[in-house]
Amino acid sequence: MFEHIISSVAEKTPLIHCITNYVTVNDVANVLLACGGSPIMADDAEEAEEMTSICNGLVINIGTLNARTISSMVLAGKKANELGNIVVLDPVGAGATRLRTQTTLRLLEEVKFSVIRGNISEIKTVYQGSGTTKGVDADISDAVREDTIEEAISFAKSLSKKTGAVIAMTGAIDIVADSQKAYIIRNGHPMMSKITGTGCMLTAMIAAYCASNKESVLEATAAAVVAMGYCGELAYKQMKKTNGGTSSLRIHLIDAISKLDDAALIGGCKIESKK
Amino acid sequence: MFEHIISSVAEKTPLIHCITNYVTVNDVANVLLACGGSPIMADDAEEAEEMTSICNGLVINIGTLNARTISSMVLAGKKANELGNIVVLDPVGAGATRLRTQTTLRLLEEVKFSVIRGNISEIKTVYQGSGTTKGVDADISDAVREDTIEEAISFAKSLSKKTGAVIAMTGAIDIVADSQKAYIIRNGHPMMSKITGTGCMLTAMIAAYCASNKESVLEATAAAVVAMGYCGELAYKQMKKTNGGTSSLRIHLIDAISKLDDAALIGGCKIESKK
Amino acid sequence: MFEHIISSVAEKTPLIHCITNYVTVNDVANVLLACGGSPIMADDAEEAEEMTSICNGLVINIGTLNARTISSMVLAGKKANELGNIVVLDPVGAGATRLRTQTTLRLLEEVKFSVIRGNISEIKTVYQGSGTTKGVDADISDAVREDTIEEAISFAKSLSKKTGAVIAMTGAIDIVADSQKAYIIRNGHPMMSKITGTGCMLTAMIAAYCASNKESVLEATAAAVVAMGYCGELAYKQMKKTNGGTSSLRIHLIDAISKLDDAALIGGCKIESKK
Repeated sequence: MFEHIISSVAEKTPLIHCITNYVTVNDVANVLLACGGSPIMADDAEEAEEMTSICNGLVINIGTLNARTISSMVLAGKKANELGNIVVLDPVGAGATRLRTQTTLRLLEEVKFSVIRGNISEIKTVYQGSGTTKGVDADISDAVREDTIEEAISFAKSLSKKTGAVIAMTGAIDIVADSQKAYIIRNGHPMMSKITGTGCMLTAMIAAYCASNKESVLEATAAAVVAMGYCGELAYKQMKKTNGGTSSLRIHLIDAISKLDDAALIGGCKIESKK
Repeated sequence: MFEHIISSVAEKTPLIHCITNYVTVNDVANVLLACGGSPIMADDAEEAEEMTSICNGLVINIGTLNARTISSMVLAGKKANELGNIVVLDPVGAGATRLRTQTTLRLLEEVKFSVIRGNISEIKTVYQGSGTTKGVDADISDAVREDTIEEAISFAKSLSKKTGAVIAMTGAIDIVADSQKAYIIRNGHPMMSKITGTGCMLTAMIAAYCASNKESVLEATAAAVVAMGYCGELAYKQMKKTNGGTSSLRIHLIDAISKLDDAALIGGCKIESKK
Repeated sequence: MFEHIISSVAEKTPLIHCITNYVTVNDVANVLLACGGSPIMADDAEEAEEMTSICNGLVINIGTLNARTISSMVLAGKKANELGNIVVLDPVGAGATRLRTQTTLRLLEEVKFSVIRGNISEIKTVYQGSGTTKGVDADISDAVREDTIEEAISFAKSLSKKTGAVIAMTGAIDIVADSQKAYIIRNGHPMMSKITGTGCMLTAMIAAYCASNKESVLEATAAAVVAMGYCGELAYKQMKKTNGGTSSLRIHLIDAISKLDDAALIGGCKIESKK
């Protein structure tokens, strides 16, 4: 598996329209370039549909929501659906406030997503239509642990069935699933939680990987999750070697993504599949 | 002093709600994580109060003001007051335009701040309700110098008396004061003025330090000011060692903050207290 | 040529008002500081004119346009014209959507620009009032190549005649021209296209260089274009030496800009002038 996922991104240079938050937007743009894609950010309702029309994929990230951008998200999402483009949702902080929860639910009603990526709290909110979120991090009580993996998988599968989207539920252990099949991914390093934006960056990479591998969205999503985790491991080693801190970790992470190829990804995989 | 300030942040992982500018927001989020806190950015009036309610502290930074976010600042500030949460004001550029000056004054009327941090021009504007600011940097004529320290201290003390807030007036020499007691801090390096965001990052660190040390807001604020300055010194040394420039300085700065502990902070202090 | 361009920026520390996109705004601020200037970001209509009045130059960058900021751009642009300040336009993505094309045309009607910097697709849109843009990158068919240089120069000269602005058309080969004279610049490295913001950063540097060298806007613009390209070459070498990736390239780029002086710039020039 994953034989040509990354080389296919490099060949196609998918243009990804991002309606995303202003906290991590620069990292998102740089990661899209690093992984072989090309970013364009545009969040005004007047140009949202037109911009999406010249792109190969769309990211909707609700990290710094406001009334102005919600309508742009809906407009762009519908247009991307019309064109058959990949659309990825990152429901940042869903469950933390009514605005985020309701916006997430509205987006799910109006737009058909190819992939939904979030931590387990956010994904639970997507499922239940309500939830509790400690800021933008998952509730610790809700973490996917070795003894709750089966439960998490069946939950992800049933959410995939409900939404038609591939579900990427990320944390210490990541689950990527459609309604039939799931991947358990154990790449990554705990230190990654000490930099902002790894989730947002991953969501954007998923969009680039999927837009270049539309025939295998489940595998492309899993590959992006592995890539982010594996590059986090490489970045952590590099950080330790140079006696750096969290800001170095972030630089090394994007560096690693920019240097990753198919062979390295396949070599670095800590993945298991379950029917 | 400062015995458990940093370890207390690490233990409590305070969640800090930031309504801040889009220029330095990513650095602010990364510094909050680096110093042991957790950031959440949300600036829409519809969710400002709700978001603040799940947080331990609030930062209001007027760096890129607009009508939409001013009301969010007021709403969040009042809610944080109601909950007894730490609220820190960074009046970026107050004095430079009427919008910034008036917004600062309105915020001071409607919200009770735990700490106000700014350069001397901004702090003078807070005091006088008007002022001149050369962009976002302090007027050179207004710098705290060895021969004007006493004047600066008595000014900071009287502003603290007026507002009830701890005042952190930062520059080459930093003054941190409440109405009774002042600290003079001589940490830092001039090169820090060659990167954007050290002020905004410091403001956020103050919020995290104070939210975890609510019984000693004056000391926690002084500790954060020392921490930023001392890490700037370490970063400068590292930059010189690796023959880097200003962008490396910024990486080394956040790296140093992520590695700082109580003992290192105490060892690095250049602080003097005055009744 | 270029004898005192950079030292003049360092002496005057021009304050540059930026109404710019939220994707690369942090890099723009850091590059302005690195090159000897000072940034201030303010995009609200209520303070746009007042802010510009205390500044030495203005950057208008339409990278993440919305209705709220368009009026600020016009207000600030007119005020800067009134004051005789340098005004630089970066028509990011002009041609990609009607909103961007029309806003660009409106800005050109209402504001007199000192310099317009863009890739060839964007510059063509400025000229024609319409165009096709692949996202924010130039159409490959439209790239300036060795065999199309003469054509590109005469195009830039005639746009300069039409607008009164110096035209900086950047890509693998850069053209900087007024109505009389053109420079062909061959600095830079292809890897620079793998990080976001080099265009936005260059536009801001042009504003700082020109604001400090108002008597020679054409030369100052060319110097900034050379500086960005040459620092890109240095950054690439450093990246290779340390076995880094694209994120390291970005750090090394801003580092190099912060260390550049007149002599190094003159030594690094790959420039040719044509009447």
